[in-house]
Amino acid sequence: MQSYQEMSKEELLKEKKALEAEYKKFQQRGLKLDMSRGKPSQEQLDLSMEMMDVLSSDVDLTCEDGTDCRNYGVLDGIQEAKVLLGDMIECNPDNIIIYGNSSLNIMYDTISRSMTHGVMGNTPWCKLDKVKFLCPVPGYDRHFAITEHFGIEMVNVPMLSTGPDMDMVEDLVSKDESIKGIWCVPKYSNPQGITYSDETVRRFARLKPAAKDFRIYWDNAYCVHHLYDIDQDHLIEILAECKRAGNPDMVYKFASTSKISFPGSGVAAIATSANNLEDIKRQLKIQTIGYDKVNQLRHVRFFKDSHGIAEHMRKHADTMRPKFEMILAKFDAELKDLGVGSWYSPKGGYFITYETLEGCAKNVVAKAKKAGVVMTPAGAPFPYGKDPKDSVIRISPSYPSLEDLTTATEIFVVCVKLASIEKILEKA
Amino acid sequence: MQSYQEMSKEELLKEKKALEAEYKKFQQRGLKLDMSRGKPSQEQLDLSMEMMDVLSSDVDLTCEDGTDCRNYGVLDGIQEAKVLLGDMIECNPDNIIIYGNSSLNIMYDTISRSMTHGVMGNTPWCKLDKVKFLCPVPGYDRHFAITEHFGIEMVNVPMLSTGPDMDMVEDLVSKDESIKGIWCVPKYSNPQGITYSDETVRRFARLKPAAKDFRIYWDNAYCVHHLYDIDQDHLIEILAECKRAGNPDMVYKFASTSKISFPGSGVAAIATSANNLEDIKRQLKIQTIGYDKVNQLRHVRFFKDSHGIAEHMRKHADTMRPKFEMILAKFDAELKDLGVGSWYSPKGGYFITYETLEGCAKNVVAKAKKAGVVMTPAGAPFPYGKDPKDSVIRISPSYPSLEDLTTATEIFVVCVKLASIEKILEKA
Repeated sequence: MQSYQEMSKEELLKEKKALEAEYKKFQQRGLKLDMSRGKPSQEQLDLSMEMMDVLSSDVDLTCEDGTDCRNYGVLDGIQEAKVLLGDMIECNPDNIIIYGNSSLNIMYDTISRSMTHGVMGNTPWCKLDKVKFLCPVPGYDRHFAITEHFGIEMVNVPMLSTGPDMDMVEDLVSKDESIKGIWCVPKYSNPQGITYSDETVRRFARLKPAAKDFRIYWDNAYCVHHLYDIDQDHLIEILAECKRAGNPDMVYKFASTSKISFPGSGVAAIATSANNLEDIKRQLKIQTIGYDKVNQLRHVRFFKDSHGIAEHMRKHADTMRPKFEMILAKFDAELKDLGVGSWYSPKGGYFITYETLEGCAKNVVAKAKKAGVVMTPAGAPFPYGKDPKDSVIRISPSYPSLEDLTTATEIFVVCVKLASIEKILEKA
Repeated sequence: MQSYQEMSKEELLKEKKALEAEYKKFQQRGLKLDMSRGKPSQEQLDLSMEMMDVLSSDVDLTCEDGTDCRNYGVLDGIQEAKVLLGDMIECNPDNIIIYGNSSLNIMYDTISRSMTHGVMGNTPWCKLDKVKFLCPVPGYDRHFAITEHFGIEMVNVPMLSTGPDMDMVEDLVSKDESIKGIWCVPKYSNPQGITYSDETVRRFARLKPAAKDFRIYWDNAYCVHHLYDIDQDHLIEILAECKRAGNPDMVYKFASTSKISFPGSGVAAIATSANNLEDIKRQLKIQTIGYDKVNQLRHVRFFKDSHGIAEHMRKHADTMRPKFEMILAKFDAELKDLGVGSWYSPKGGYFITYETLEGCAKNVVAKAKKAGVVMTPAGAPFPYGKDPKDSVIRISPSYPSLEDLTTATEIFVVCVKLASIEKILEKA
């Protein structure tokens, strides 16, 4: 295939005409396909149905230490749930608090607490004139929504293939005391599927922030969400690395079982240093008597241990892998040689990101919509919804069936081609 | 029996000696009894065990409207849970948001949101010099802990047999714009077991607060927690009454199933006006994708409807009633004629409050502890833990067995008698 950039105007117009005919055919099918949100499919949800059987009226709902999970008490989670999630995220159970059903909720509460009460004795952020967060972009829209909600100024940091641009991160945090945090999805990142390199993690752990209350918000959402059994990305464990680097209190690590068992009915956790935990618990004990221990126990009894989780994730991978491979194969076959964009080939996580020529993303998403394919809005993976290059499109392969996804990808490819030709012609 | 106040010093000393011997006998038994927290007993928890059976891998986890409870989505709760809790708390399901496992958490979040973002467009409280809350006393320690945590000044308002002193409430809220709320447990109140009279509720609904963002925090924790089937207290529904009075936005009503199914594994709700709901959801959608819908469904499938809840609460009442009646009978028999304190006889809820002679509560609690009976700390039912008269003691009958509770009550009675004599002698 010839690159569009090298085609003559005539060749482009001819290609455009053929694509428009193809596009019209798709439109006539009246499709309704959705590649917009990172929701597990029905098939994936079915994998956890036996979780509904592990507790019953015949089963003792008592923990190993004698705690009756049915009653009040235990602020920071039952011990066996801490062990289970600790193993999953490679942290000491003593460094963990188990919360309710949502790690997003923990992140929100963490920011909210920092606003009203400050971090480990530092000035509450609501008393400061300016608070900033670094936002590796593209990133997770719901992270940015939290910081925006609290009026925190967001500063874009470009994502490289190794993670955030660490030169920029080091420079900014060392100079600017108003920078209080950075949002990270360090493994199989949302939306690109990048895993931070060893060097990136080591440089994170060695940051010298101007602000004493600077924290790394390490959202390890896809820690066990591999597509392959051997060909997996490895991420250096950040708490241990920060401790080794003499920055034990600099990171909050978040995780949940949302895309492992049932989204919305899982358990979520924070892992951090003893000092941070103490700071958090001072507030947490006012906020709640405790989270849902029965559901914690349900997860422990179902998964048993981290091997159980790994085995379970293998089943998820079996449903996700064909979808990722199909999309990537189509991109390789249809788009690779055209010079109209780029993408990473993630080995896990929930997303593939297609990066169009500058100024094409909105057009592609709009075209896809008119052909019956709903995508995540262009711009969503950026603070304030503003993609400065209008080029990033997040693709969520999980929810549709492979068949629907194949059709949706075909439509997407046609839309990318069309929008690219339009852009090239416009410039010519 | 003769009143202690009318006894001569000699008579008192004689009585004291006899009581001290009795007290010593209890001490020698090395008891460990707990009347400190409002926790359901094992027997009560067993009542809900079949809730663990209603969902299984064979059961469809789909709502009536087709929502798959296993996946993401539905910010404000599944419709059938809104109907169930709406019927329970006498509110339109459209006025309800279903949260996670804890109404305390909702209250905390409500205060926290008011601090950072204000109430319906009003100035965020963190930007104000002074924020105050009215606190009917005695009240619930965890309410006061929240307001204290946020640096909100608490103003005591005495509880009368009809509810808070409404003359004082009306006067204060109409004059002082810094008063932003009042904590209420309007039915079978914590800790006295008082239900607000019709007049009290009507006066609440007709308040003319100086602050536009004044809200009544109506914690209807014990709405269905009756001890008797016919002889029940009735509370006027506050949302409807506020609407009728032209103050539709003035109240947040909170409830949960914590002491109905399993504490910590129930569902909680807020009910309020459409305007308030809109204000809340603007923040809630940033905080979470949604709460645990599977657990909401579990509650709906178990209880079915408000009749199911009422039937279930009858079983709870069967375990609670003998405990309440035993304590009240002992108080009547042993303390009534001595002139050493007073109490209400609640028809529901979780607590009985004993009010000692002034300056005796701490002494009674300390004496009980030395004889092996743990009580809620004296002072706990007051803001900042300070009971100005040192006279209020909260008794929690639910957790111990009737046998243990009987012994604990006998010890308590001896401690009250002893502390009262000591106080009378000290004054004489």
